[in-house]
Amino acid sequence: MSKKIKHKSAVGQPPGTLTYIGEKKNTKVKISLIDYTEAYYKEKVIKDIRECYELTEKPSVSWINIDGVHDTQIVKTLGMYFRLHPLMLEDIVDTGQRPKVDFYEENIFVVLQMLTFNEQTKKIDTEQVSLILGQNFLLSFQEDKTGDVFEGIRERLRKKSKGSKLRNSGADYLFYLLIDTIVDHYFLVLEGVGEELEALEANIIHDQTPRDFTKQIYEKKRQLSQVKKSALPLRETVARLIREEEKFFSANNFYLRDLYDHTIQVLDTTESYIDVCSNLMDLFLSFIGNKTNDVMKILTIFSTIFLPLTFIAGVYGMNFKYMPELESHYGYFMTWVLMISVAVGAVLYFKKQKWL
Amino acid sequence: MSKKIKHKSAVGQPPGTLTYIGEKKNTKVKISLIDYTEAYYKEKVIKDIRECYELTEKPSVSWINIDGVHDTQIVKTLGMYFRLHPLMLEDIVDTGQRPKVDFYEENIFVVLQMLTFNEQTKKIDTEQVSLILGQNFLLSFQEDKTGDVFEGIRERLRKKSKGSKLRNSGADYLFYLLIDTIVDHYFLVLEGVGEELEALEANIIHDQTPRDFTKQIYEKKRQLSQVKKSALPLRETVARLIREEEKFFSANNFYLRDLYDHTIQVLDTTESYIDVCSNLMDLFLSFIGNKTNDVMKILTIFSTIFLPLTFIAGVYGMNFKYMPELESHYGYFMTWVLMISVAVGAVLYFKKQKWL
Amino acid sequence: MSKKIKHKSAVGQPPGTLTYIGEKKNTKVKISLIDYTEAYYKEKVIKDIRECYELTEKPSVSWINIDGVHDTQIVKTLGMYFRLHPLMLEDIVDTGQRPKVDFYEENIFVVLQMLTFNEQTKKIDTEQVSLILGQNFLLSFQEDKTGDVFEGIRERLRKKSKGSKLRNSGADYLFYLLIDTIVDHYFLVLEGVGEELEALEANIIHDQTPRDFTKQIYEKKRQLSQVKKSALPLRETVARLIREEEKFFSANNFYLRDLYDHTIQVLDTTESYIDVCSNLMDLFLSFIGNKTNDVMKILTIFSTIFLPLTFIAGVYGMNFKYMPELESHYGYFMTWVLMISVAVGAVLYFKKQKWL
Amino acid sequence: MSKKIKHKSAVGQPPGTLTYIGEKKNTKVKISLIDYTEAYYKEKVIKDIRECYELTEKPSVSWINIDGVHDTQIVKTLGMYFRLHPLMLEDIVDTGQRPKVDFYEENIFVVLQMLTFNEQTKKIDTEQVSLILGQNFLLSFQEDKTGDVFEGIRERLRKKSKGSKLRNSGADYLFYLLIDTIVDHYFLVLEGVGEELEALEANIIHDQTPRDFTKQIYEKKRQLSQVKKSALPLRETVARLIREEEKFFSANNFYLRDLYDHTIQVLDTTESYIDVCSNLMDLFLSFIGNKTNDVMKILTIFSTIFLPLTFIAGVYGMNFKYMPELESHYGYFMTWVLMISVAVGAVLYFKKQKWL
Amino acid sequence: MSKKIKHKSAVGQPPGTLTYIGEKKNTKVKISLIDYTEAYYKEKVIKDIRECYELTEKPSVSWINIDGVHDTQIVKTLGMYFRLHPLMLEDIVDTGQRPKVDFYEENIFVVLQMLTFNEQTKKIDTEQVSLILGQNFLLSFQEDKTGDVFEGIRERLRKKSKGSKLRNSGADYLFYLLIDTIVDHYFLVLEGVGEELEALEANIIHDQTPRDFTKQIYEKKRQLSQVKKSALPLRETVARLIREEEKFFSANNFYLRDLYDHTIQVLDTTESYIDVCSNLMDLFLSFIGNKTNDVMKILTIFSTIFLPLTFIAGVYGMNFKYMPELESHYGYFMTWVLMISVAVGAVLYFKKQKWL
Repeated sequence: MSKKIKHKSAVGQPPGTLTYIGEKKNTKVKISLIDYTEAYYKEKVIKDIRECYELTEKPSVSWINIDGVHDTQIVKTLGMYFRLHPLMLEDIVDTGQRPKVDFYEENIFVVLQMLTFNEQTKKIDTEQVSLILGQNFLLSFQEDKTGDVFEGIRERLRKKSKGSKLRNSGADYLFYLLIDTIVDHYFLVLEGVGEELEALEANIIHDQTPRDFTKQIYEKKRQLSQVKKSALPLRETVARLIREEEKFFSANNFYLRDLYDHTIQVLDTTESYIDVCSNLMDLFLSFIGNKTNDVMKILTIFSTIFLPLTFIAGVYGMNFKYMPELESHYGYFMTWVLMISVAVGAVLYFKKQKWL
Repeated sequence: MSKKIKHKSAVGQPPGTLTYIGEKKNTKVKISLIDYTEAYYKEKVIKDIRECYELTEKPSVSWINIDGVHDTQIVKTLGMYFRLHPLMLEDIVDTGQRPKVDFYEENIFVVLQMLTFNEQTKKIDTEQVSLILGQNFLLSFQEDKTGDVFEGIRERLRKKSKGSKLRNSGADYLFYLLIDTIVDHYFLVLEGVGEELEALEANIIHDQTPRDFTKQIYEKKRQLSQVKKSALPLRETVARLIREEEKFFSANNFYLRDLYDHTIQVLDTTESYIDVCSNLMDLFLSFIGNKTNDVMKILTIFSTIFLPLTFIAGVYGMNFKYMPELESHYGYFMTWVLMISVAVGAVLYFKKQKWL
Repeated sequence: MSKKIKHKSAVGQPPGTLTYIGEKKNTKVKISLIDYTEAYYKEKVIKDIRECYELTEKPSVSWINIDGVHDTQIVKTLGMYFRLHPLMLEDIVDTGQRPKVDFYEENIFVVLQMLTFNEQTKKIDTEQVSLILGQNFLLSFQEDKTGDVFEGIRERLRKKSKGSKLRNSGADYLFYLLIDTIVDHYFLVLEGVGEELEALEANIIHDQTPRDFTKQIYEKKRQLSQVKKSALPLRETVARLIREEEKFFSANNFYLRDLYDHTIQVLDTTESYIDVCSNLMDLFLSFIGNKTNDVMKILTIFSTIFLPLTFIAGVYGMNFKYMPELESHYGYFMTWVLMISVAVGAVLYFKKQKWL
Repeated sequence: MSKKIKHKSAVGQPPGTLTYIGEKKNTKVKISLIDYTEAYYKEKVIKDIRECYELTEKPSVSWINIDGVHDTQIVKTLGMYFRLHPLMLEDIVDTGQRPKVDFYEENIFVVLQMLTFNEQTKKIDTEQVSLILGQNFLLSFQEDKTGDVFEGIRERLRKKSKGSKLRNSGADYLFYLLIDTIVDHYFLVLEGVGEELEALEANIIHDQTPRDFTKQIYEKKRQLSQVKKSALPLRETVARLIREEEKFFSANNFYLRDLYDHTIQVLDTTESYIDVCSNLMDLFLSFIGNKTNDVMKILTIFSTIFLPLTFIAGVYGMNFKYMPELESHYGYFMTWVLMISVAVGAVLYFKKQKWL
Repeated sequence: MSKKIKHKSAVGQPPGTLTYIGEKKNTKVKISLIDYTEAYYKEKVIKDIRECYELTEKPSVSWINIDGVHDTQIVKTLGMYFRLHPLMLEDIVDTGQRPKVDFYEENIFVVLQMLTFNEQTKKIDTEQVSLILGQNFLLSFQEDKTGDVFEGIRERLRKKSKGSKLRNSGADYLFYLLIDTIVDHYFLVLEGVGEELEALEANIIHDQTPRDFTKQIYEKKRQLSQVKKSALPLRETVARLIREEEKFFSANNFYLRDLYDHTIQVLDTTESYIDVCSNLMDLFLSFIGNKTNDVMKILTIFSTIFLPLTFIAGVYGMNFKYMPELESHYGYFMTWVLMISVAVGAVLYFKKQKWL
């Protein structure tokens, strides 16, 4: 529940109103531009949003990356320049969106959840990424929480190696690559969770379950359901992209299908990890049951042996005037024989019951 | 089960009979009318239902809101004026309806459950809202239980800001807006439930589970299944609206799709909260198991240490005439040595078992 | 399992053989006839099955209701008169049928399970009802177990009120009305079960669970799965009626859709009651766990306090000759001080553990 | 797991190789032939498989039933005579097949699992039955384990009653009848299991659960999942027969639909019995929990009463020289008063806690 | 979790980059070639990958089997010779692929998981097998972990028996045969797991559950979910092959359908084994519960008998000056009578409660 439903403040607003919904922020929004064709490459940081206006008409592929969506004015201005539907803009600044794709007449609009596994805190950070694909431009909006994950793609764009598919292709291939990078990060997250599950499993197999074992399992389950909640609509999104691809994508569909296979693999792995959690929990519960049973047995064995002995000792501690056994020379000795017999008998009984 | 199945009194009635099914009420039904075009706006409270008759022929958009459906005569009269199918009227006054949409030749009829989270009682109030969309009119029927939630929309209607989509559009856009407002309230309800779940989670993580923890979880589960029961048919309803939209809706379908995305998000969140409830319950049960185990251990440790000691003391409390140890000067001292050895041995054993 | 699978005696019989399967009965089968057009109405009890023959040719709507299907000869004769397929007749007399609809060339054949909640025994009675709709006749077969539930419809048929939809319509509307009546009775059954569930819930919330709580929950679950088993195929049946309706039904389909909505509502409610049962069971189990834990705590507290005390008393009950403490004047007093200290220490420890 | 997966020995074999997979057998395979038209009927046991050759050309309906499929040579020869596809033959002799139907150009090939409930052992016997329907012949292969279940059909074939549907119809009707007989046996199996479940339920309701209750439930669950595993593909098989029927079946489809209804009823009943098993298990577990709780209470009550009493007795058993109470004339009496007060106080406390 | 998600090192790489993902290896890759027509057969080990180039043009069927995919250069070269899509090559060297089929213009590309049950370690070994079917060639890539499983097929290829379907058919039949062999190995794996489950079941039925029973069940569940994770996409793969078969497969589709039936049977069996695991776990848990209950009973019986007895003995061990019973000649005897009565009373009570 770390990520709340963020709709509250927007309830009652007319649809299409730009209201930023998310953590409060005062940082300045960073806008970077990459403009390229096969032959040409330019990269710069944009200070004034108005610089973007001229880009809308250029034939080169323009990739504008906006880090931070809390400044709704910037989003609004970009929306005006690139003639974006108001509902699109509303979704960009509402960081509690469900992943989805919308097909507008001139654009494809994709909202995704980018997950990153924080190695220190062992938590999953979520960040909403919105992508808008137009004729020869691509807008990407990030939440400015975790670092930038598209640096690898920028590296590849800078290299003008002969036959680079990326520089030769249009904005649609870049669009595909960004989504692919995000999906790849899901694997890293699952790997992080998987390693911790393996550690927990090793714990329980070697009978060294920590006291907060169930809390840890609970925590992992929560993280996995977080991954699932993001990955399920992600799969739908990619599936819809494939169905509609002919209209928008110039390249053939093998890349999108590959992407789709990866989203399914993410879901498969998530599901199987959730199963592992449940099975570990069952294992733990049966261990608790077993241990309680063992503790009970020890208690019962001790009680069953010593209660009769103490009784016998109590009997001969009585102060009756007439107790013939007390007078006998062998009384004390015989009593020990009796007590030892009782104890041995109890031990033999428990041996037979396989309790010892 | 706070909301009973209300069909009982209507069983055996011919279909189409208007029988109010719901809480008994004597309050007067409040009818309010808003009549508008882009240029013109009128709002008034209607005293006599007959005033509505003339509205049916006017070209302006007429929104008649009826607060209270227990006066079946009013519903019947409106039905006559606006030529509504008897089955529609029957559903309006039966407040136990499942959310649904029916497409009649000239109208769209939608029944919804409006949910509101009562911050004081921490309960979810349910109220049935029926909407009938006609050529240039919209009828909305509320149950008159909780307050009116459409005030925000009225506000927006009153403002004649230039380019207001609402005033420029027909009754279909108003119709969409009313449903949107209802769906938005589901988010508020889920937020209320979510906050309480977070509190319960914090309780259990910090080992401060209240005694009625399971009852509270049970209560939350009940509320969530109540939300789900309303939201599931709501999603179907919106989906059917989208499928049939071309026939009835003049606007393009982006708004309805946005609405559909929201209903899915409501369901996703509800499902994940139900999962959270189950996981919290599991966590609690494993805690109970652990605690019972701990209590058992303390009992067993104490018994295992003191039962043998008491036995030894008992032995030398016996009154046999001939007990050589009793005569010995060091007998008492040696007995203490024996008893302490037994106690230390037991403690060492439990240390080795990691019970201490 | 109160209703057994009744196929045994029919195994090996050629298909189409009329074998009555159900409780044995000797009662006489009661056949009643209602014959009507808009203007004309006749109602009589038929003594001789041959009276029915002439009806097959009349243009008026004839409703023949047969109470009791154990007299296979009557069913056979009717089958001959109305040219019914042998498989239909076989299904009528086999009272263990799954609800279904079959479309024959000239007839629609529907088998349903009629449920009634017995207020005295708190049990659900099941009775098979078969309906055959022909061109201008309707045959209804009941099992003659519980009372007749169609009396309300007969009442409405008798009244020749102007504009009565029932008298103006054909056999298909009557057919719809009979099914509607049966579906309405499902709501009554659910209401009965729901009230008992509410009582059980109140019990557990107020910590007054009766000893046979789990048995009662089990009983309710059984009843609900009985309702579900009848209602699921009922929904399919109505859905198929809607799909095929154009061929057979003269009226428009709003009535059938309304019926379909009701069957879905029945299923929704049943499902949610089953969930309630499971949740109540979980609640109860966690209570049992809590209670066992509480009992254990009391036992442990008492043992932990009194075992050391008894041990101390035992020590000074020993009969060693040389026990310096015994000689001391303050020995007894000091021993009490020691014992009280131990007891107070234990109590403080338990206070700290929040056991007290 | 009584029926192993039998593929092992066939792994690595080329497809189409005839390898008998099943229990080893040396018995002679029994081949019986029934040849009939409406007017003519012949029945004989075939000694030499070559006698079958002539049958392939005759216009009469020939039903060859083979009891035992371990003699692959016979299957091979028949395959050659009737021009059967090698894959069909391979499936016939591999007795671990999943029920299915295959449509070959000239034949329909059906593999089914025949279940019979052994009243003595209370176990379900499984036997694979393969049917091949050709133009004017029907081949049936049984495993020769349990008795022959088609005797009833043979009886009906022998009777040349006027208008016997069986003798008048072609091989397709006979084919349907054989499948119908097999499906009917599923009801007998379910009835056997159901009766045992009822006995177990009666046990638990009357608090007389046998010690191996859970094992018995486990056994029933296993049997039911066995039925389900056979019945699920059986339903698919019949459904596919219905879809493809026009090509192969001369008769109308009412019979097949009736068959389909029966397979669904088998599955419904199986599912509901599996539910009953789970519910009975839950009931049993909550009983165990209740009983442990009761045992604990008795232990706690006794300990809580007698530990303090024994302690008091122990105190006055101490041998201190100076113990004023011991000297008092009423000391003993007062001690009894104290001890009885403690005991009565404890009892009152437990009464208040509703433990007594 | 023994097979990790292996995507990590490839994250951020451009799609189509050949990065081997899997266990590190230094072994030399073994390439073997089989080239055949009906009349001609050649088999050799290829030392230099360049020998393969000429094969691409030959009309005979060429089967190149590559054992080991860690030498990406070899895969790259083959890809160039046979004009394979880069995504195909990327998938071949990434050994964490989900089973799938991709249809390229000139090739069918299948990735499968080959499972083998290691009889010694009782573990399931997984190995990725990729198959590429071209016009007259077939490429198969194995991971070089477990032995080669295609030897049986090679044997059959070598034999030039008259009418051998294999030698007469094209590469598509060989392609089918390789997949069939892999699916057959799933049955062997399931048989191995099934035998161990039977052993565990026998253990629990005969009350000889080993201490690590739950761990073993957990292990089996993990293996079965591993099988399921491979088999589910395998079924999809075969289903897609069937749907697309007309374009690529010359033979009729009976063989593929047979394959499909086998994959379904694998899944059915896996599912039913998973059920068996869950049921065994339930059985074990109810046994633990029963056993704890039994232990408790013994403890309670002993305590309930001896606590009062010890108390009585304690009373008459008190040292009060005035204790009339002590003086009585029959005091000691009467005390024994009292103690025996108490003990007998307790035993009778427990008999009545059916605890003894």
